[in-house]
Amino acid sequence: MTPRPRVAPLRRDQIVRATIRCLAREGYANLTMKKVAREAGVSQGILHYYFPNKRSILLAALARFLGHLDRLRLREAPGARDPRERLRALIGACLSVAVEAREFWVVFVEFWGEMMHDRSLLRVNARLYARIRRLIGELVASGIRAGLFRRVDPEEAGAVILALADGLSLQLTFDPRARTVAQATRLGEEAAMRYLARR
Amino acid sequence: MTPRPRVAPLRRDQIVRATIRCLAREGYANLTMKKVAREAGVSQGILHYYFPNKRSILLAALARFLGHLDRLRLREAPGARDPRERLRALIGACLSVAVEAREFWVVFVEFWGEMMHDRSLLRVNARLYARIRRLIGELVASGIRAGLFRRVDPEEAGAVILALADGLSLQLTFDPRARTVAQATRLGEEAAMRYLARR
Repeated sequence: MTPRPRVAPLRRDQIVRATIRCLAREGYANLTMKKVAREAGVSQGILHYYFPNKRSILLAALARFLGHLDRLRLREAPGARDPRERLRALIGACLSVAVEAREFWVVFVEFWGEMMHDRSLLRVNARLYARIRRLIGELVASGIRAGLFRRVDPEEAGAVILALADGLSLQLTFDPRARTVAQATRLGEEAAMRYLARR
Repeated sequence: MTPRPRVAPLRRDQIVRATIRCLAREGYANLTMKKVAREAGVSQGILHYYFPNKRSILLAALARFLGHLDRLRLREAPGARDPRERLRALIGACLSVAVEAREFWVVFVEFWGEMMHDRSLLRVNARLYARIRRLIGELVASGIRAGLFRRVDPEEAGAVILALADGLSLQLTFDPRARTVAQATRLGEEAAMRYLARR
């Protein structure tokens, strides 16, 4: 007996990648199920089997990138124990996404647009942001315990550092000629370290 | 002779306000010229006389808010001379927009989505961001001259402070329950002041 071929996840991925290409080219407002089917090289019937509507493909595209970000984070600074080094690596990894994977921000910004008038998407994003603030906060807390950072509220420090990373990423995405990733990373690191520094 | 009635700007404004209401309710992807005409209480012919397409109304909605922000900035801290006080007032004014005029971020995020695949809109935004960095940079430079801030590159400080304001504004817009405007403003001010502080 031959094993059943696992075509389903492959085809799903093929559709999501085609959607990201369509979004980068024309935006969510101009996205249609017909265009996605054509770009992915599948019939509209097949497309509807996997995704009932535009919104569900946008969510799948976002989930794909978030998984990618999680893997990126785990790969960064593999042996590093020093919370300062880990925090710097995290900021650098976030900002490099803005240039190396510009499609991520295309998808994310389109998701934000949809979210503004869709309460369930708003909740998805609020949970994601709370999780990122907590992750950064844990790093900050370990730096406080090691006597490297001043005593701040870790969740608040997470909000400040996430704001720096988001804000600088947007500036890189919007205007890549204004600054290099390396320059933006240096700015983000310096602002974070000065925020956390003991006097 | 009676003066000619100035109905044109009024009607234009009525259409822009109707568009903002439509955007907040359904988003740019679902916006149609027909819905805008109905919401504004004008015929589709009249609507097309003022705006040829969706994109042109989105731009007008953005321009309306940017004018509003300029007036807000001029009103803030009217007598203040101290660059620290002016910078704090600016950060506070930016963050209060996220809650008091949530529609601004709805329009702005929809504009970003369109911009990602429209080079001329991308240039409009790049110029706007460069202008805001320069304005903040001028405030920072006056603080350096007064010996209140360390010697930083004013444009780079503008990028850091704009990133903080944008990033914290997005967090307030996405999840108003996570923090009050007053708490977010305190965080933004503290991070900016620590970035600029002399040792």
